[in-house]
Amino acid sequence: MSDETARSYYVDGDIVPADEASIPVTDRGFLYGDAAFETLRAYGGDVFHWGAHADRLAETCDVLGMDHGLTDTELRACIDETLAANDLEDAYVRLSITRGSQPGRLTPAEEVDPRVVVIVEPLPRGGRGSEPVWDGPATVQTVRTRRIPDRALPARAKTHNYLNGILARTELRVTGADEALMLDSEGYVTEGATSNLFFVADDALCTPSLDGPVLPGITRRVVLDLAREEGIPVRERRFTPDEVRDANEAFLTNSTWELRPVETVDGISIGDGPVTTLLSRLYDDYVERQCYGTEA
Amino acid sequence: MSDETARSYYVDGDIVPADEASIPVTDRGFLYGDAAFETLRAYGGDVFHWGAHADRLAETCDVLGMDHGLTDTELRACIDETLAANDLEDAYVRLSITRGSQPGRLTPAEEVDPRVVVIVEPLPRGGRGSEPVWDGPATVQTVRTRRIPDRALPARAKTHNYLNGILARTELRVTGADEALMLDSEGYVTEGATSNLFFVADDALCTPSLDGPVLPGITRRVVLDLAREEGIPVRERRFTPDEVRDANEAFLTNSTWELRPVETVDGISIGDGPVTTLLSRLYDDYVERQCYGTEA
Repeated sequence: MSDETARSYYVDGDIVPADEASIPVTDRGFLYGDAAFETLRAYGGDVFHWGAHADRLAETCDVLGMDHGLTDTELRACIDETLAANDLEDAYVRLSITRGSQPGRLTPAEEVDPRVVVIVEPLPRGGRGSEPVWDGPATVQTVRTRRIPDRALPARAKTHNYLNGILARTELRVTGADEALMLDSEGYVTEGATSNLFFVADDALCTPSLDGPVLPGITRRVVLDLAREEGIPVRERRFTPDEVRDANEAFLTNSTWELRPVETVDGISIGDGPVTTLLSRLYDDYVERQCYGTEA
Repeated sequence: MSDETARSYYVDGDIVPADEASIPVTDRGFLYGDAAFETLRAYGGDVFHWGAHADRLAETCDVLGMDHGLTDTELRACIDETLAANDLEDAYVRLSITRGSQPGRLTPAEEVDPRVVVIVEPLPRGGRGSEPVWDGPATVQTVRTRRIPDRALPARAKTHNYLNGILARTELRVTGADEALMLDSEGYVTEGATSNLFFVADDALCTPSLDGPVLPGITRRVVLDLAREEGIPVRERRFTPDEVRDANEAFLTNSTWELRPVETVDGISIGDGPVTTLLSRLYDDYVERQCYGTEA
């Protein structure tokens, strides 16, 4: 299934060849980015933490005032159908729900005829002893583009309006860094363009709290739970860029990357260490148990 | 051409029936709202102030770091071809340029294979003595959703990331108001979700300056020029919501609406008046001369 031309996507009720998968230009997802989405990872045919993703998707749709009428079970079936059509067990999954076509007005109608799109790509097996999907530890660069404040567009809503992160990433063209570290309006650290940030300082695991404009990442949540179970002190609050640059270890998380060590921040060497290594291993073990059903 | 099924749109080099006009789900315009657009109005087959729209579109693409390689002449030809295919002389026109499909990464590649989309809808004739396209004077409501700060996503970039305005409009479901008046992070007035705001106070024409997160509207520019030519004092600066509510007259502008009087702001009666009426008439005369080639 590594041949893209042979892949199939789910579009508005049908499984279609990837190169024919399209949506009408009148769809609000295209015209305005008026759509909710989730990025998920399937391990051994099982979608990791589907319940948490379904809850966050519901929260996004609630923020958007989009009452799409689809149940979590129906949405999960769209994903499962797409994975099966591609004969994929280990995969990247992108599930989107658009507000559909509503001719003529920016103001969304309450009555919605949504379109669901599922895109999948093969990934290597996860779990114990798995190879990471990233090329190497991340170089991170603080950028000028500030995170959109929650009062303008809540960060907990995961939508097709992604230009804030794209502008941040575009700034990296000069340095060639892998991820953009974005600050809030007051200059505090929030997150990367597509990842949550963790770092280790004074033997505590630190990460910006969700009080700021920070996406409540599913991987972020799992990592925090694993750390607490392991007795690692956890600090969730606001942090300055200097606190990150002074860290002993740092790593990024998202559903695809899982835990990705940070090599440098703004050119300052940080790298991984015992806490990052331990949490990566605990995460792999957790995936192994949850999705592949293998006990340690 | 009022039958939508008979209409044709321009999509990526081809004129296609409207109900078949679609873009790939892998297009960044769909995945991330990673696209620039302009809303224009054609009068008598002539696109009003094409040069100003082309300049603003270029500015948007510059902000997005999207070097699409298309000339203004080529883009204008896409519009003209679409209008001709629909046998339309008086029309609403929406021209979009997406960053195309770039599999796998949020970071945009510098090499772009853009997609151009042109959507058109018939409008009544403009110019002298024309009927407005809006239903009546606008009811305006100040909303909680704040305008995105320029440091997060510059307001001068007109992109497919329109959820900020959509969230603002969604707040109007309760009151049924026509337009949402959005404030900046500090509580100053910026603009409507799809319109610039003008009001009259102490015989001066007032409008929020472009120092704040305000789209540099083409109609806004024309109205300011007409006012200055007429000797009407103009004030461009920051204004509080109270200054708007205390106004003697108020109106909204955009390319489709032209000038639309404001009936109420937050339930407070304002309405039009001599300055709004004069500027509306001058605008119609200007369109008549510019596009229909008729002298006064």
